[in-house]
Amino acid sequence: MDPRVSQHAKLIVTYATGVKKGDQVLIMASDYGLDLASEIYKEAAKLGGSPLIVMTPSEVTRAYYEVTPEEFLDIYPKHLYELTKVSDVVVSIRSDINTKTLGNVNPKKLTRRDKTVRPIQDERLSKRWCLTQAPTPGFAQDADMSLKEYEDFVYSAILIDWASQRTQMEKLKKALDQADKVRLIGEKTDLTMSVKGRNAIVGDATHNVPGGEVYTAPVDDSAEGEICFDLPGIRYGREIKGIRLKFSKGEVVDYSAETNQDALKSIIETDQGSKRIGELGIGTNRGIKRFTKNILFDEKIGDTIHLALGNAYKDCGGINKSAIHWDIIKTMKPGQILLDGKVLQKDGKFSWE
Amino acid sequence: MDPRVSQHAKLIVTYATGVKKGDQVLIMASDYGLDLASEIYKEAAKLGGSPLIVMTPSEVTRAYYEVTPEEFLDIYPKHLYELTKVSDVVVSIRSDINTKTLGNVNPKKLTRRDKTVRPIQDERLSKRWCLTQAPTPGFAQDADMSLKEYEDFVYSAILIDWASQRTQMEKLKKALDQADKVRLIGEKTDLTMSVKGRNAIVGDATHNVPGGEVYTAPVDDSAEGEICFDLPGIRYGREIKGIRLKFSKGEVVDYSAETNQDALKSIIETDQGSKRIGELGIGTNRGIKRFTKNILFDEKIGDTIHLALGNAYKDCGGINKSAIHWDIIKTMKPGQILLDGKVLQKDGKFSWE
Repeated sequence: MDPRVSQHAKLIVTYATGVKKGDQVLIMASDYGLDLASEIYKEAAKLGGSPLIVMTPSEVTRAYYEVTPEEFLDIYPKHLYELTKVSDVVVSIRSDINTKTLGNVNPKKLTRRDKTVRPIQDERLSKRWCLTQAPTPGFAQDADMSLKEYEDFVYSAILIDWASQRTQMEKLKKALDQADKVRLIGEKTDLTMSVKGRNAIVGDATHNVPGGEVYTAPVDDSAEGEICFDLPGIRYGREIKGIRLKFSKGEVVDYSAETNQDALKSIIETDQGSKRIGELGIGTNRGIKRFTKNILFDEKIGDTIHLALGNAYKDCGGINKSAIHWDIIKTMKPGQILLDGKVLQKDGKFSWE
Repeated sequence: MDPRVSQHAKLIVTYATGVKKGDQVLIMASDYGLDLASEIYKEAAKLGGSPLIVMTPSEVTRAYYEVTPEEFLDIYPKHLYELTKVSDVVVSIRSDINTKTLGNVNPKKLTRRDKTVRPIQDERLSKRWCLTQAPTPGFAQDADMSLKEYEDFVYSAILIDWASQRTQMEKLKKALDQADKVRLIGEKTDLTMSVKGRNAIVGDATHNVPGGEVYTAPVDDSAEGEICFDLPGIRYGREIKGIRLKFSKGEVVDYSAETNQDALKSIIETDQGSKRIGELGIGTNRGIKRFTKNILFDEKIGDTIHLALGNAYKDCGGINKSAIHWDIIKTMKPGQILLDGKVLQKDGKFSWE
């Protein structure tokens, strides 16, 4: 086995979730996640944790939607709820062999089931939870790489010095928390918003592995100006390229896209909250050098920013509500991030670098 | 996938465990059990069950004993207990790729851990539980077959008409329940015991898949005579061949074996109860034609009997207590089973056949 799988597992049981004696550790995996799950099992056992692996092959999930009579989609998996409730640590490993496995399932069925299992999701988020990913052929294919190349990509993002990353990210958080106006300047871009009174969060390798973003919730009516995104937004597997958004009083007042503009339209017009910026994030993981159509990695690419249209995080002090939270990423090399008129980052260098 | 895997799964969710709407269905598997577990998942979902697969690769179990500090072996897996408690149906799939994986683990560690998790085992046995097996290279190797050949062997034992089997087995139960003296006659064998007042149990495809035995608990001080076993007894992977036991007043008073007689000695001398017969079983599954060093199959071979030295089943009205329950199997073709002097079975034919 690739020794990096063990290193990945060690990072999860130590830095990410801090497994200690007596912890009940639930590990959820699918097709390609069993090696990582097994290593997490062993590392957790060493530290006195009680590990348990729940395995759901992606074709089983798909078949579930095929064979289950529609009214049974409301049947509550009480055992998974109880299992989650009694767990201290929950590690979810994204590891489907093929990212399109659920692509032909009726979305209404997925939504109905999601609603049924929502209390389990909420319970999980009240634990020391961690979402991570194993390299799989499907993710590699989405990233235009071979599996071997993709393994290198994944571990370059994950196996880095997180303590030193955290120090950098804390500096960034402090700067954002003390600022009022954030101004983003770049090609066809000059957008200003306020983050006054909001709380920036350091997303290092804890809830997401890889981590690598500091994010906050802009003041709802503050965004003014225009932004063009060089990286595509992804919606239901479709790429929306060349997105341009124009804001006034916090709301999108004009927009365009070079491809799939209809998809962009339907996102923006979802509800009242989907016209506002729910999140401003700054990607800090310089181990991630490529866009791979995978938000767990893309939003953390070093020297990028991302905006999410829609729902804001309460932890950030955000109040915007929406049925969506849709991230779009922009490279800031070249580009500038100014805080109250002073340079925070210019062409991929922070002011303290 | 082999279509017999789906048929096996259907048998388990219908005949064996009767999954119905709302049932919480826990499926436990290791290395080679995932296909069967996945099919059980789908079949259970069709019927309105909530399935969940817990996966523990055998090398992970082995590694657990290697890496876990000894005092941590007492740590209780509360989550597995709660998961079992809230489940209605528990299916355990024996599916280790290699039957010797735990062979070099210190037996004291295994015993210590077994003791810790005993309440989970007890909880499981209070559910609609089922123990079954998937064909694996290790089981095939123990059976001196290729995996392909072994698959045929396994499904010949499992995919049979269980309703008709049950009818036959009920007849056998009735005959045993009405009898006082059971006499076994065969080569170098003439052994009599009483089953008066005891309760014979029909082991069809419910708790064990395959099923195929009717078993009871002989009256403790009743066994008189001698028996020679043509099939070897297995203890910790060692074959004890040519076992001969002589009983008086229910207890072994003389014994010999052609190989590993020391192992037989230590079994018989375990405690007071290990000198007595805890179980008399009659194998009825004629789909099983070969001895494969695997008790789940061997004790059900059609037209065999087995005796277990040691602990008796309470359900049978048995009272003998012992730390062991060790089965030895004897072919009854040629041979006779007499009930109160009348032929029940002769040379592999029941009296009603």
